[in-house]
Order: sequence, then structure tokens, then C-alpha cells
Amino acid sequence: MLRSYPAEITMDRVELAAAIDALIACAEACTACADACLSEDSVAELTKCVRTNLDCADVCNATARVLSRHTGYDANISRTLLEACAMVCKSCGDECGQHAEMHEHCRICAEACRECARACESLLATMS
Amino acid sequence: MLRSYPAEITMDRVELAAAIDALIACAEACTACADACLSEDSVAELTKCVRTNLDCADVCNATARVLSRHTGYDANISRTLLEACAMVCKSCGDECGQHAEMHEHCRICAEACRECARACESLLATMS
Amino acid sequence: MLRSYPAEITMDRVELAAAIDALIACAEACTACADACLSEDSVAELTKCVRTNLDCADVCNATARVLSRHTGYDANISRTLLEACAMVCKSCGDECGQHAEMHEHCRICAEACRECARACESLLATMS
Amino acid sequence: MLRSYPAEITMDRVELAAAIDALIACAEACTACADACLSEDSVAELTKCVRTNLDCADVCNATARVLSRHTGYDANISRTLLEACAMVCKSCGDECGQHAEMHEHCRICAEACRECARACESLLATMS
Repeated sequence: MLRSYPAEITMDRVELAAAIDALIACAEACTACADACLSEDSVAELTKCVRTNLDCADVCNATARVLSRHTGYDANISRTLLEACAMVCKSCGDECGQHAEMHEHCRICAEACRECARACESLLATMS
Repeated sequence: MLRSYPAEITMDRVELAAAIDALIACAEACTACADACLSEDSVAELTKCVRTNLDCADVCNATARVLSRHTGYDANISRTLLEACAMVCKSCGDECGQHAEMHEHCRICAEACRECARACESLLATMS
Repeated sequence: MLRSYPAEITMDRVELAAAIDALIACAEACTACADACLSEDSVAELTKCVRTNLDCADVCNATARVLSRHTGYDANISRTLLEACAMVCKSCGDECGQHAEMHEHCRICAEACRECARACESLLATMS
Repeated sequence: MLRSYPAEITMDRVELAAAIDALIACAEACTACADACLSEDSVAELTKCVRTNLDCADVCNATARVLSRHTGYDANISRTLLEACAMVCKSCGDECGQHAEMHEHCRICAEACRECARACESLLATMS
């Protein structure tokens, strides 16, 4: 799809595609992990995890949408949003990581969050 | 991720996973196609396409999130939403399909929409 | 804002504006109620409520966005989505209504959901 | 709704409620303005405006959702997201402001964006 864009894209297309894929995968993992936490008997100990998952899903989703747009591109907005998103992903990766040994969904989600934080930072590195 | 859900899932897991994947891919294709249309010289002829793309992205995104939740599952809601989503995807596939020969992004997006409509209907068929 | 739209709007503008306002208010109420449920000591008894709130917020949000677009309007899509949304709102209103005496946030949210279902149905009535 | 939250909220509740209201109003104004731009005869000159509107709607929507959650609150995430959102709102306010004399929807949207940027910064000021 990126190859079919009819104008110039002022970002590294390989890193951009990797970041969008990671953002979408992370958003989906966080939505599913929040719901899986709700179904655990120990949900009362997982409420911070649910909340962080919901935030991470929303921020990843918004960031993926913004990065998918190239018309009238503004590097400052992409950069600021990628920085915010990387922070949210790291925070959610840390939170899920604490429950990774107990809950397989948290282990999978923590990995998606960390992968997404890396992809955001990798794209950011090509933009400076 | 579906395998790690700690309770029963009252849907066909293979069809469910395929539908969620198709919904996410379709939402991303529609977001990117709307933006690519905006960058075409012929944007004035593509405004209905942009609008339909934006609707389809929003509805697929909401449907993917609802289908990713299994706690307190309500089959009526999933069914109604899948039906609405399949209709939106078909409509967007038709609209993008009209520009598929002119614009590669519309061709790719039309295919994602049709694949998503099929996946929604395939999941619906397992639910009745 | 509706008055400034540069082309014809083929819906009753008063009902449309009321529906969009109700959808946005309901989405916000559901997002806040889901989080308030997470902070209750009795969260383990409220997991279905959290889930239904999250679904309702997502569907109301998508419906508000679709109804805010008039370019290349398709009555079938608006109608189908409004019907699905009214069903989700009623379901969430019922669920929150069961906890309304215990939790003020559920009482407020149930009212927002019912008001939104009424606004969706009222707009639907003008479309047939 | 904020008053019914069952635990402490570590933010100024008046500023918080004002920011959430402004974010929701801005997201809705941006969604409607993007569509109104698509229906203008001069849409080819408004494509950057459409894109910026879509970004602003997505970022305001995500920020409103994150700010509506208080369970397991993390000030760093709220702060970073508010800063990113204020930047996007200012950028969109500037873009819409350039078309405010020609298009009433851009004038209304520019004002919603600037009001939202002010509300984000006002809430940020209470957090440091």
C-alpha cells in the first residue's frame, strides 16, 4: 500500500511500514489482553494492567492512523506522537511484564508492547 | 493470543481470528487509501471514496475491538455489528473498485474490503 | 457546525445534531464508567459491565463519526449502523442499570446509554 | 461523572473536566470539518486541512479516553500525551485558521482547536 501512494513520502518507507505494523499488532494485543485480564479470577490485582492496556491500545491506534497519512506531512507532529507512543508502550510492556509468568496473555502483550516501542524509536532515529 | 484467553470463547476460534485479522487489515488499508486519494490530482472526483474509506476504517476498527472481547459475551451484539460491518465493507469495496484501474491504492483497498466482508460473513455463518 | 456544511444534508438536522451529541456523551460516559468500575472493590462482579461499557464506547464513537460525514451519503449504512448502535446502547443501559443503586457512575452511565438509544431511534424514525 | 469516581483523582477535577470536554468538542469539530472540506468545490486546495483535521480528531479522541481513566494513574503518560495533543491542536487551528474567512466550518473548527490547546495547556500547568 505504501508503494501506491501517489506523492513523495518523506520518511524511510521500510521503517515506516514496520512501525505501522507494530502499532496495529500492539493495539490489538492490548485490547485482547485487557479483556483476558477481566476474565481472570485475580482481576482485582490486574486493574492497573487493564487500564494501561486500554490506554496503550488507544494511543497506538491513533499513532498508526497519523503515520498512515502523508498528505501535508508535518514531521514535528509525527515525532512528538511517536515519542509519546513509545513511552506508553514501554509503560504497558513493564506492567504486563510483571504478570507474564502468571498469565500467557500478559507475556504475549508485553512482547508486542516492547516490539512496538522499539519500532517507534527505530523510526524516530531515521527522522532526526 | 486467542489461545491464552482464560475462559471459554463461544465462537469458532479459527474464523474469529481470521475475521479480526481481516478487520484490522481493512481498517489500515482504508485509512491509507483515504489519504492517498487526498494526494491525487483528481481528488475532486474521489471525495465519495475518501468518505467511504473513513467510515469503513472506523466501523472495522470498532468491530475488531468488540470481537476481541469475550468477557460477558453477547451473541446478538456481535452478530448485528458483523452484519453492519459487512455492509460497510461491501459498499467501500464497490466504491474503491470503481477506481481500481486508475489507482493502485484503490485496487488494494477494494480487495481488503471484499476480503473483510467475506471474513465477517464467514464468521456470521458459524454463529447461526 | 452542521449549518456550515457546504452541501445538502439529507437528514433532519435537528435530530441529527441531537443524535451526534448523545453518541458523544454516551461514549464518554461509558469510557469513564468502565474505569470507575475497575476502581471499585467489587470489580470482580463488574467485569461484564466493564466489557459492555468498552463496546458501547467504541460503537458510539464510530457511529458519531459516520453520522458527522455527509459527503457521498449512503442512507443504508447510516440506518444499519444506527440500529446496531441502539442495540448496544440498550444492552449497556440494562447492564449498568443493574448496578445503578450501588454505583452512581453506573446510574449516570445507564441514563446516558438510554438517552443515546432514544436519540438513535428518533433519528431512525425520520429516515424511513 | 467525575464526582462519582470511587477513588482519588490526582488531578484538578475542574481543569480535567474542562479539558475532556474541550477534547471531545474538538474531535467532533475536526471530523465534521474534514467532511465539509471534502464537499467544497475547492477541495483540491484543502487536502492538507482534511489531513490535519483527521489527525487532530484521532489524537484528541485518544487523549480524552486516556484522561477519562484514573485507575493506576501515571502522570508522565498524561503529561506527554497532553503536550503532543496541544501541539496537534495548535497546528490544526493554524491550518483551519488560514481558511476561516472562506469557510465557516474552518472558522468554527479553528476556534475549537485553539480552545482545546488552551485547555490542554491549562491542565498541564496544574500538573507540574
